[in-house]
Amino acid sequence: MRLNTDNVDVTDWHRYSYLSRINSNTVMYDTNVLQQRVTQGLSDLGIPDDPGHLYDPIRYMLQIGGKRIRPLLTLMAADLFSIADIEEAMPAALAIELFHNFSLVHDDIMDNAPLRRGHSTVHEKWNPNIAILSGDNLLIMAYTQLAKCPASNLPALLETFNVMAAEVCEGQQLDMDFENTPTVSIGDYLHMIRLKTSVLLGTALKMGAILADADDKDAKLIYNFGVDVGIAFQLQDDILDVYGDPGQFGKQRGGDILANKKTYLLLKALEIADTATQSELNDWLADHDRPSEKIDRITAIYDDLGVRQQVEAVKELHIKQAYTALNAIPIAHNRKTPLRELAQVLLNRRQ
Amino acid sequence: MRLNTDNVDVTDWHRYSYLSRINSNTVMYDTNVLQQRVTQGLSDLGIPDDPGHLYDPIRYMLQIGGKRIRPLLTLMAADLFSIADIEEAMPAALAIELFHNFSLVHDDIMDNAPLRRGHSTVHEKWNPNIAILSGDNLLIMAYTQLAKCPASNLPALLETFNVMAAEVCEGQQLDMDFENTPTVSIGDYLHMIRLKTSVLLGTALKMGAILADADDKDAKLIYNFGVDVGIAFQLQDDILDVYGDPGQFGKQRGGDILANKKTYLLLKALEIADTATQSELNDWLADHDRPSEKIDRITAIYDDLGVRQQVEAVKELHIKQAYTALNAIPIAHNRKTPLRELAQVLLNRRQ
Repeated sequence: MRLNTDNVDVTDWHRYSYLSRINSNTVMYDTNVLQQRVTQGLSDLGIPDDPGHLYDPIRYMLQIGGKRIRPLLTLMAADLFSIADIEEAMPAALAIELFHNFSLVHDDIMDNAPLRRGHSTVHEKWNPNIAILSGDNLLIMAYTQLAKCPASNLPALLETFNVMAAEVCEGQQLDMDFENTPTVSIGDYLHMIRLKTSVLLGTALKMGAILADADDKDAKLIYNFGVDVGIAFQLQDDILDVYGDPGQFGKQRGGDILANKKTYLLLKALEIADTATQSELNDWLADHDRPSEKIDRITAIYDDLGVRQQVEAVKELHIKQAYTALNAIPIAHNRKTPLRELAQVLLNRRQ
Repeated sequence: MRLNTDNVDVTDWHRYSYLSRINSNTVMYDTNVLQQRVTQGLSDLGIPDDPGHLYDPIRYMLQIGGKRIRPLLTLMAADLFSIADIEEAMPAALAIELFHNFSLVHDDIMDNAPLRRGHSTVHEKWNPNIAILSGDNLLIMAYTQLAKCPASNLPALLETFNVMAAEVCEGQQLDMDFENTPTVSIGDYLHMIRLKTSVLLGTALKMGAILADADDKDAKLIYNFGVDVGIAFQLQDDILDVYGDPGQFGKQRGGDILANKKTYLLLKALEIADTATQSELNDWLADHDRPSEKIDRITAIYDDLGVRQQVEAVKELHIKQAYTALNAIPIAHNRKTPLRELAQVLLNRRQ
């Protein structure tokens, strides 16, 4: 059912695809073509040169990569709901990616992170003031793209985008608060990751649905699909820190353990451990002198308590909820294949 | 021509004013009533309680005061152009005030400022991370208000707001850049203050005009009025630092001189001084040990060179340009009285 794009000049993809689409409602864009369109759209943004200290960091952030999953989701959802002209979804897709980069630049300052995508973070390469201001401007650029969306969809798009944007800030604040909170419940943690990472995926999809004039009910279903995939993705991230293959995962094993990060694994372990094990865990959390022993011992406690299996079960639950939402959308099953495939790639990565 | 509000219950002003307006197109709102409406609108925002570290600083920032000139300008412009229902301009007015507060919170971090409106700045009272994130959320709240504007005006409002927002960031970056730039021209300085402070005043007015469905030409004229008033206001600020009455001005005299701030006065002095005076000025700029002598001596150089008169002349030029723009709007002269009066208050304050 996919459009064969092997012999298509990509610069001409839009016209070609459009002609195919008016001949058959079932033809969809190839995911790779949509991905290329996002890349092209980002490089066509026309970011000014001056002042260099404001716009160079923005260019840098957008050039050092990233998988562009979120804008791709917007285009894929618009395509799923048979938008008449996929070009109309481009500004919203770019807005999502610009927002994502805004949040990364500011989060990296707050987290004092030296590296992002294997390169220096903006506040490291320039300074925190420049990172604050260029982050601000990335957020404004996101809204500048939103303003280019069709006027008929603009109020609904702005509303869903604004709710998401405030929630992402709330999630980041909760994440910072948790560092200094002695007891964080599993419920609080799931609430935090929903806000900090998942609603952006859901909103990316929902905006595509809104642009394609999908029913409110279907827009909500595709949103739920994205949110649940996002939660599953974050839980998997927690698992991979401890149980992933460092070579494939690209991070040092046990980084979260050494940073005393309150992951689902740690919170669940603290919740279900007996008093003796709890106090052993707390002793290790207070220990900063024996990193490799700390990782090994805490991993062993996780193994004894079976927390990995518990996290996997919750991850599976959210994957199941995600597919339930996707399946409930009254559109032919095969049109949803690209989204299912993308979710599968995201949720089985690097294991 | 002003509505007499002495005996009006303010909570009922809108209905009362509206009834008056349908009886006579020339009736305008009393400026104090519009000001009260802004105050009410800000306290009706419904800012969430949680997370407290995100929303408490926002509540704090909005409660420690400020003159609310900018949102008032939006309402006054909407009223000038006879908007049918002034309520429709409230979200845009609030968006302008929220944006202004966003920029203050972030600028204060960048400038390492301890005080704002006589109270601790957000990054001092809490910490820089909280100030970054609550500033971000103030910007998002501004757009949340914009999204409530009438759909028919939304694309135009968003466009003018986004251009302004990016320009304010550019102005702040240029201001920071100037600290480390040996030679800043008068032209560069005027460009910077236009971006950093003036376009916000112009945009506040223009949004009111857009909401009242004013002609593009008139919206541009009221914008120009605001920008020129803004530039004159900033030039006056430079003058008051040296020549203002500290008691009335509320700041220590010569604060800009001690901070080596590149004001119009200093830049003009460096431009027109002979080589000997230039080198004397530069010696004083390098001197951090004799503050009161530094202020007295640099002031004396300004006096010798007559820079105050030159700045006053440029200020007057911008005031004249402002009134030329205002006068060119084809609306009865007396409807513009409230705006002229407000400009007069702003431009003759504390001297």
